Amino acid sequence: MEQINKFIEENKDRFIDELFGLLRIPSVSSKTEHKQDMQKATEYLKKSLLDAGADSVEIIPTGGHPVVYGEKIIDPSKPVVMVYGHYDVQPAEPFELWHSQPFEPEIREGKIWARGADDDKGQLFMHVKAFEFMVKSGTLPCNVKFMLEGEEEIGSPSLGKFCRENAEKLKSDVILVSDTSMIGRDVPSITTGLRGLSYLEVEVTGPNRDLHSGLYGGAVANPVNVLTKMIASLTDENNRITIPGFYDDVIEVSREEREEMAKAPFDEEQYKKEIDVVELSGESGYSAMERTGIRPSLDVNGIWGGYTGEGAKTILPSKAHAKISMRLVPNQQSAKIDELFVQHFKSLAPPSVKVSVRVLHGGEGYVSPVDHPAYRAASKAYEATFGKKPVPFRSGGSIPIISLFEKELDAKSILMGFGLESDAIHSPNENYPLWNFFKGIETIPLFYKYYSEGD
Amino acid sequence: MEQINKFIEENKDRFIDELFGLLRIPSVSSKTEHKQDMQKATEYLKKSLLDAGADSVEIIPTGGHPVVYGEKIIDPSKPVVMVYGHYDVQPAEPFELWHSQPFEPEIREGKIWARGADDDKGQLFMHVKAFEFMVKSGTLPCNVKFMLEGEEEIGSPSLGKFCRENAEKLKSDVILVSDTSMIGRDVPSITTGLRGLSYLEVEVTGPNRDLHSGLYGGAVANPVNVLTKMIASLTDENNRITIPGFYDDVIEVSREEREEMAKAPFDEEQYKKEIDVVELSGESGYSAMERTGIRPSLDVNGIWGGYTGEGAKTILPSKAHAKISMRLVPNQQSAKIDELFVQHFKSLAPPSVKVSVRVLHGGEGYVSPVDHPAYRAASKAYEATFGKKPVPFRSGGSIPIISLFEKELDAKSILMGFGLESDAIHSPNENYPLWNFFKGIETIPLFYKYYSEGD
Repeated sequence: MEQINKFIEENKDRFIDELFGLLRIPSVSSKTEHKQDMQKATEYLKKSLLDAGADSVEIIPTGGHPVVYGEKIIDPSKPVVMVYGHYDVQPAEPFELWHSQPFEPEIREGKIWARGADDDKGQLFMHVKAFEFMVKSGTLPCNVKFMLEGEEEIGSPSLGKFCRENAEKLKSDVILVSDTSMIGRDVPSITTGLRGLSYLEVEVTGPNRDLHSGLYGGAVANPVNVLTKMIASLTDENNRITIPGFYDDVIEVSREEREEMAKAPFDEEQYKKEIDVVELSGESGYSAMERTGIRPSLDVNGIWGGYTGEGAKTILPSKAHAKISMRLVPNQQSAKIDELFVQHFKSLAPPSVKVSVRVLHGGEGYVSPVDHPAYRAASKAYEATFGKKPVPFRSGGSIPIISLFEKELDAKSILMGFGLESDAIHSPNENYPLWNFFKGIETIPLFYKYYSEGD
Repeated sequence: MEQINKFIEENKDRFIDELFGLLRIPSVSSKTEHKQDMQKATEYLKKSLLDAGADSVEIIPTGGHPVVYGEKIIDPSKPVVMVYGHYDVQPAEPFELWHSQPFEPEIREGKIWARGADDDKGQLFMHVKAFEFMVKSGTLPCNVKFMLEGEEEIGSPSLGKFCRENAEKLKSDVILVSDTSMIGRDVPSITTGLRGLSYLEVEVTGPNRDLHSGLYGGAVANPVNVLTKMIASLTDENNRITIPGFYDDVIEVSREEREEMAKAPFDEEQYKKEIDVVELSGESGYSAMERTGIRPSLDVNGIWGGYTGEGAKTILPSKAHAKISMRLVPNQQSAKIDELFVQHFKSLAPPSVKVSVRVLHGGEGYVSPVDHPAYRAASKAYEATFGKKPVPFRSGGSIPIISLFEKELDAKSILMGFGLESDAIHSPNENYPLWNFFKGIETIPLFYKYYSEGD
């Protein structure tokens, strides 16, 4: 630990410079206009991995954005740790809410401010630098593979096929992922559960053009009014989702386990204060932590229709749209939920409108075993650098690839996240504290050490 | 009639050129960026009126956009007809749906295509040209005043004060307005009823920033989900508005009158076909014509919130917005409805969100008397040029100024509209058939003749 801390101290400015170079590339996977930026990001990472000490690095094309694959095999008889990360980022809109440019990283208040500062460029870069340390210091105790993809934020549509086609190359004993948050800087935690996702886009069409709301209003169905009724009916007064069959595959978590989970520190007042709401809201009968950790949810991610400019325009719009996503819990199948949603949503439409539904992306939930040797190694590593044992924690987020890895590569994933909820990932002013960035670089080599030593 | 038709025939190209000059000015009253265009439009109209034969024309400033006032007093002992029109237009968005540029008028298929081609530049210009004919041919039988405003599309906020401050100048026996449609080219009609309007904008705020829908979804109220529930609840399963007290001042139209109205020709199949809907929808117990003519309605004119770009962004949005308007029937008061709406809408908000409501504009409904000498003169004029007696017709639209005129100027208005429903006013591809434009110029002088002759 002394050695790594010295290394960090001597190289910290370079580490930040190198990360900034990556953050400046607007690798937004959901927008076709950023196709070239995706390529730039892969080349940047290829160079980073080679500089850090990888034997070889490839940029492997997929049906979508390419995967950066690198490896260092020190001894084929030793275990293989595969690091997974993603170089793509969420769109940065709304730009006007950012205090500095999303793709011009800045340090203020001890934090790096940029889209991707945490999710996931900052977190994946900790692994590159920890790897560099182990290579340069001769302390790398096992084989390492890197698989860095560019489609995580759009549901990793190409990675299943990629894993199947490259199963031999990707063979590993455990997959290490830093793409999650800890409960707090003082409460280190390791994510042991993730939710699945079904993300759809709906379109309701009324008349074939925007109509004058005076001449037609009252006689012709307004697709926005209709859409609000359809969406409103998707959840009931207890905030339960009303889609028939939706809860069929949900495994109810036992009272004992819920009691165990309730011991994790959670300061509801602080939580509400940080997001400035007076009251939380969610499914009746569950705590806030349970509502995100072990229960599914349904959110409108975006809605639009009609006139949204300045002033008043008296139209009865032709169309209304919404992006609607559901977070799923382990054992719910995304494809099945998509189907139930499409069927139910269409059934809600009155004959006065036309409805179309498009599945945008999805993925399955995951539960990680706390008795796995790699989990124990990660736990010991955190304990050594944070001074306290990390809490196992079920996150509400989704990393669809994690359940895919289990299925396609037959390997468990350990979610060693170093982010914080205040990092505002997916929001304007995403940030990543320097403290966490360096703490990650400090902690990761210990994982390799403990994992290679075995219990 | 022969004389006017000869005049039209000899001058039609010039009339169109002159109207095109006015249509080229993007006088969108709701957008501050068009302030200079508003000024340009007033100067254009001033010149048009002077060229047509007005004694004097003034551009009179108001708190908002100016009013163009012109007059020709031939004999103070004769009656005064005041022509009201508006030179402002609705925004042209969405631009991409126009087949030609909204502010580059074109003639195709015998129609003028441009924003304002009908509403109201095309219709007001008929009056300028009819006036020119009467002056040049020496047939103007009475005094004429023109009041052309620039704020009709935003609810005429300055015109009440303007009328009060200029009451002496504006004194007239009847007000003539062409800002409405006929049932059809073969079914001439005169609008005898207008609906009032309450137009509001609502904002629902959840968390202080867009949140990650995985980490927070299910535990924090989503303002879009909440807004859909609030809007959905504003109408019940019979499409009746649920705001307490909303219907208190609605005068139920008698069975006899409804039977009389039902005689007006209305081809439901054609109506549905034109707007491409399979089924109409509206308040139970009323016909389509009644739903727009004698019943109030509630429409979302626009809605927006969260991510609306390409692809999937997994956020729980911070804010959701909607523009909501209600069409009111005579005897409902816009200010009272605004108040009821604000009070009710706020009461719908759960404590997990904050709600604000802003009144954008409004106006009162109007019923025009069919036994007024001016109505009879208008009716005779249509009969002479269309070959059939026009049908009195209650429109669903709103011209808030009409009820204001009655209150402030103590004058009745006659709504001699020559538009058609297919003119797509307020929509992309607004148009005005040349046939209607010239038929208006032909009909208007007859109104002056019959009105001056008396019964």
